[in-house]
Amino acid sequence: MINAPYLLFLGDTSDPSYAKTAFGLRDWAPERCAAQLRLGPAVDLGLPDRNIEDAVAEGIRTVVIGVAPPGGGLPDAWLPMLVEALEAGLDVAAGLHTRLNEIGILKSSAERSGARLHDVRVPASDYPVGSGRKRSGKRLLTVGTDCAVGKKYAALAIHKALQGDGLNSTFRATGQTGILIAGDGTPIDAVVADFLSGAAEQLSPDNDPDHWDIIEGQGSLFHPAYAGVTTGLVHGSQPDAMVLCDEFGKDEIYEYPGYRIPPLSEVMNAYVDVARLTNKHARFVGAAFNTSKLQIDDARAWLGEKSDQLGLPCTDPYRFGVETLVRQIA
Amino acid sequence: MINAPYLLFLGDTSDPSYAKTAFGLRDWAPERCAAQLRLGPAVDLGLPDRNIEDAVAEGIRTVVIGVAPPGGGLPDAWLPMLVEALEAGLDVAAGLHTRLNEIGILKSSAERSGARLHDVRVPASDYPVGSGRKRSGKRLLTVGTDCAVGKKYAALAIHKALQGDGLNSTFRATGQTGILIAGDGTPIDAVVADFLSGAAEQLSPDNDPDHWDIIEGQGSLFHPAYAGVTTGLVHGSQPDAMVLCDEFGKDEIYEYPGYRIPPLSEVMNAYVDVARLTNKHARFVGAAFNTSKLQIDDARAWLGEKSDQLGLPCTDPYRFGVETLVRQIA
Repeated sequence: MINAPYLLFLGDTSDPSYAKTAFGLRDWAPERCAAQLRLGPAVDLGLPDRNIEDAVAEGIRTVVIGVAPPGGGLPDAWLPMLVEALEAGLDVAAGLHTRLNEIGILKSSAERSGARLHDVRVPASDYPVGSGRKRSGKRLLTVGTDCAVGKKYAALAIHKALQGDGLNSTFRATGQTGILIAGDGTPIDAVVADFLSGAAEQLSPDNDPDHWDIIEGQGSLFHPAYAGVTTGLVHGSQPDAMVLCDEFGKDEIYEYPGYRIPPLSEVMNAYVDVARLTNKHARFVGAAFNTSKLQIDDARAWLGEKSDQLGLPCTDPYRFGVETLVRQIA
Repeated sequence: MINAPYLLFLGDTSDPSYAKTAFGLRDWAPERCAAQLRLGPAVDLGLPDRNIEDAVAEGIRTVVIGVAPPGGGLPDAWLPMLVEALEAGLDVAAGLHTRLNEIGILKSSAERSGARLHDVRVPASDYPVGSGRKRSGKRLLTVGTDCAVGKKYAALAIHKALQGDGLNSTFRATGQTGILIAGDGTPIDAVVADFLSGAAEQLSPDNDPDHWDIIEGQGSLFHPAYAGVTTGLVHGSQPDAMVLCDEFGKDEIYEYPGYRIPPLSEVMNAYVDVARLTNKHARFVGAAFNTSKLQIDDARAWLGEKSDQLGLPCTDPYRFGVETLVRQIA
């Protein structure tokens, strides 16, 4: 569990495309984000600028590295500020390829002050083997035709809409940005294969009968590298409801030429077949599309056609919200 | 790569059921097994008894721990003999839960002499992400309705029969006993989930057009804990041919009450659907059953019926060999 409030660290990154984590946190977890810390003329999230001393005085608990520099490493120029934070008792969290816990000066600073280093790409060491036991409470899992088709966005939007309606739900993160947004979660693709579905089971434990876990999906059953991860996540999640995520105009797995995405009805049948191993009642409740390649009126018309074809509500969560999806389960 | 010849270490284990690894090695890799080493009245593999000094003199390279004591640990009483082996320059290999590399006295002995410790449950640290690229050569994968239904046995029997026919084949091990038999391989269920299919791809690299990789399957698509592993292994293996493995009289996943095994035609369709993502020509060439619960004549008759039902050769490899399967691909 990563303690809020957060101080979002932006380094000297001026290109917003490297600051997706920071923008994601600001947009999806504003209640966790108190301020920003920039080294020079970096991107501006519109949050108050605070140094370490002020942050501590205001009760901030964790410095979250909100930028991913090219290469995924941690620039040496950032170390003095992070050491200052740790020595002042602030935790530091990051989802970089480079692990904070493997940088000697950060580790020793944290040990001295008792502050914690969170590497959110690193799974907890002990997960159980999957049990297949049906759990109480209800679960929705976003699933995709491919990676990076909006599974996290759709899950966050559905969770937010349920909360807006006063319903009982929890967002369950399975990737690094999602984990920073939620404050906890499981980096499912970093789990040892034998424990995949066990880790997914543990992520959404028994809950109240009317509680919904809204689980961030990963990968795709049609991805030649990651379908094993997807399968384990589907089995452990035991979804009652699934939302298919796709992108308009996409017909092939990204960076896997020749791996064509099947017709959506076939994609959905495959997910239902897999999901029903652990939950006989698994079904699709709708689909979420990224339609950014279409003009907005064309997008609306195209979603209407898709909805007729699939017999389910279809939306672009970013443009048109997720009310039509939420009505299927609320 | 584990160097042969092996000295099979049996400790003081008198119950043959704890010595399955040793018997498997003796039966399937007799050319790698030179002798046995027992502490007192342990099980007898029928191999010559040798102490460390004699073993070194005869050119033995590796002590292989062939017994799995209850609990999977390594009894302290074995340590002096293993230290003696390491100090004499012999490598030590094991597939126990306890890692040799985490036992200080073994590690320091190995460092002093330059001998190696092989923990065959531990995967190599670096596997690539799966590429989905079609490789040259041909591949057969054994797949199952469940764990422990004869996938390793069937693969070894098919490999041996191909070699007996003078054909070009390699057994590819994916579990600890298979790895000790083959001398190398990949403990696929211990790989980090993101690299599952990449590790499976690396296990059977490009090869001659007429070469067959005979790959040991793992888990089952219908297992609520392990189907993710199975999926990644199928995708990375890109099998041209699959052999279904099952056990007569089994109707539920072992230790997962309520998880019924579907009709075999349904099981086969599911495997073909998954396999065709990475190899459009994937097909079943037969099925291998453990019929030990039937009298031999009943088994023969039952296999005949299964064969008619499935339209494929069906055999019990242990009782009736695998010639009917091999004829489908040779």
